[in-house]
Amino acid sequence: MSTYRQAGVDIDAGESLVARIKPWCARTRTAGVLGGLGLFGGFFRADFPGLAEPVLVSSVDGVGTKLKLAFQTGVHHTVGQDLVNHCVNDILACGARPLFFLDYFATGRLDVDTAAEVIRGLAQACEENGCALIGGETAEMPGFYADGEYDMSGTVVGVVDKPRLVDGARIRPGDRLLGLPSTGLHTNGYSLARHALFEQARLPLDHRLTDGHCLADALLAVHRSYLRPVQALLADVDVRGISHVTGGGLKGNTRRILPAGCDLLVDEGAWEWPALFRLIQECGQVARPEMERAFNLGIGLVLILAPEDVERAEHVLREQGEQPLRIGQVVAAGA
Amino acid sequence: MSTYRQAGVDIDAGESLVARIKPWCARTRTAGVLGGLGLFGGFFRADFPGLAEPVLVSSVDGVGTKLKLAFQTGVHHTVGQDLVNHCVNDILACGARPLFFLDYFATGRLDVDTAAEVIRGLAQACEENGCALIGGETAEMPGFYADGEYDMSGTVVGVVDKPRLVDGARIRPGDRLLGLPSTGLHTNGYSLARHALFEQARLPLDHRLTDGHCLADALLAVHRSYLRPVQALLADVDVRGISHVTGGGLKGNTRRILPAGCDLLVDEGAWEWPALFRLIQECGQVARPEMERAFNLGIGLVLILAPEDVERAEHVLREQGEQPLRIGQVVAAGA
Repeated sequence: MSTYRQAGVDIDAGESLVARIKPWCARTRTAGVLGGLGLFGGFFRADFPGLAEPVLVSSVDGVGTKLKLAFQTGVHHTVGQDLVNHCVNDILACGARPLFFLDYFATGRLDVDTAAEVIRGLAQACEENGCALIGGETAEMPGFYADGEYDMSGTVVGVVDKPRLVDGARIRPGDRLLGLPSTGLHTNGYSLARHALFEQARLPLDHRLTDGHCLADALLAVHRSYLRPVQALLADVDVRGISHVTGGGLKGNTRRILPAGCDLLVDEGAWEWPALFRLIQECGQVARPEMERAFNLGIGLVLILAPEDVERAEHVLREQGEQPLRIGQVVAAGA
Repeated sequence: MSTYRQAGVDIDAGESLVARIKPWCARTRTAGVLGGLGLFGGFFRADFPGLAEPVLVSSVDGVGTKLKLAFQTGVHHTVGQDLVNHCVNDILACGARPLFFLDYFATGRLDVDTAAEVIRGLAQACEENGCALIGGETAEMPGFYADGEYDMSGTVVGVVDKPRLVDGARIRPGDRLLGLPSTGLHTNGYSLARHALFEQARLPLDHRLTDGHCLADALLAVHRSYLRPVQALLADVDVRGISHVTGGGLKGNTRRILPAGCDLLVDEGAWEWPALFRLIQECGQVARPEMERAFNLGIGLVLILAPEDVERAEHVLREQGEQPLRIGQVVAAGA
């Protein structure tokens, strides 16, 4: 007699996971959420008082092969935070604030403890970003993932008032770039980093970086959210463009938002690559253009402002505990 | 010298995929969509003229191990349709119509042809459901998936006017259940089905069912969308509850929406299990309760109505080309 459990799917484990995560999810509840868990969909009020022309901004992402570090170390709550913060930063780059988030977690055999840790991290980051964790799917897929491994994705939906949508359209030559420091690799370049550090240089996970950090900790450092400082900035200063530095690097991502006729002049000497990036380059003998395309190299978010707004912006950001860096300017293309 | 490509990530393949899918995505564009592709988020207008209290309803899902059938047969566009229709039905169960959809596609080594086929299916189903394919993420994750394999998830966001939200709260004993036929297994129970059909009975993919269909085709049959007939019904008849029959089966899913004090009385003789379900039961010697928990058994959506609305509902549904079945009623719990 075949049973679902014999075929590798344990409905009871799924139900025990739901019971475990319920209080964490409940803590992410915001004023916009309607109803509870258990129905087929998550509900969120679509009346946005004070917004003239509300626009929903959404983004989907994963954590990529950073997950392998979670598997190697057994630390699973940080990748949950990575996923939420990555998504929140993506819509923040359009000027939007997050409303709600939904996650997908897929594994071969559901380990309730591991899944609960991941979702604890998701819920923590949702709470920190004022974003309701409104739905999720846990998929047990025998034969898809190696033992102890999983993949996940997340989708965020946020809102911005159309007149305040940040889309780069008003950027012009002479505008300045301010960079905000990253906390590490964030969620990009891990395949290359692991190749260089572990396959080529065969470093141990407890290798010490020149800045004193343990390699595993440095690689697992949470992809930070830029929501609070950038919201404070948007409330006070005219920000013409924001780019979230993910796959494609600082130049690749920032060029995406430039209007025709504009290019970037990045001042390469304005900041030093953190120790982790230098170690990766050294271990893998990675060429500089490849480093620039794969990694954030220490700058996780770029703000584009008129020259006359730079000082005010720096002041607001420093008040938020940030250390903004002047990293270059917008120039006429071909100049 | 290490490169990203050597580490297993091919940014150029990703870019060639984006170019390939762009026209299909563009065809899903609806009036609510703002802007084009290429920015960090997808934009959708959040003004819903005619709705008194608009509520966003969202859901995330995957296709589960039905994907293994796509890998075995090389047919990849149907699983894309499955994913969209599954999500659309989930929010339809709350009375919501879809606005936009975002997908996540993860694979070990990006095969542009395969990924493009999957996304062609996604886009086709989005277009059929009047739902904009507004964003997506393609993740190349070396070492996560077997060669030629992938996983994916999708998130739909829709809207319903709060007074018309279908949440089962008004269901009472005496209400009737109408079932709408499924097109096959939809997206549930594939691990058990594959275990029974392929591991236990060792049937070939081209095995003929008693209804004449080829086994592979029957297993790959697209999870249909119930959007159009149910929208027509909602416009005309007071529907008190809708359940989308997914994992947990007809009773499991329908009980989720019943108010306290209500239970179901399903008329097991009201319909015959389609040939595919009978074959699975036979091959795997699966007990009836297990069949009922894992599969839809021929009924993909359940509508709950007051007895006096049943005839009118049947008329509307038949006009939409449906064959509704009277499959039982709501009774007092413990009765």
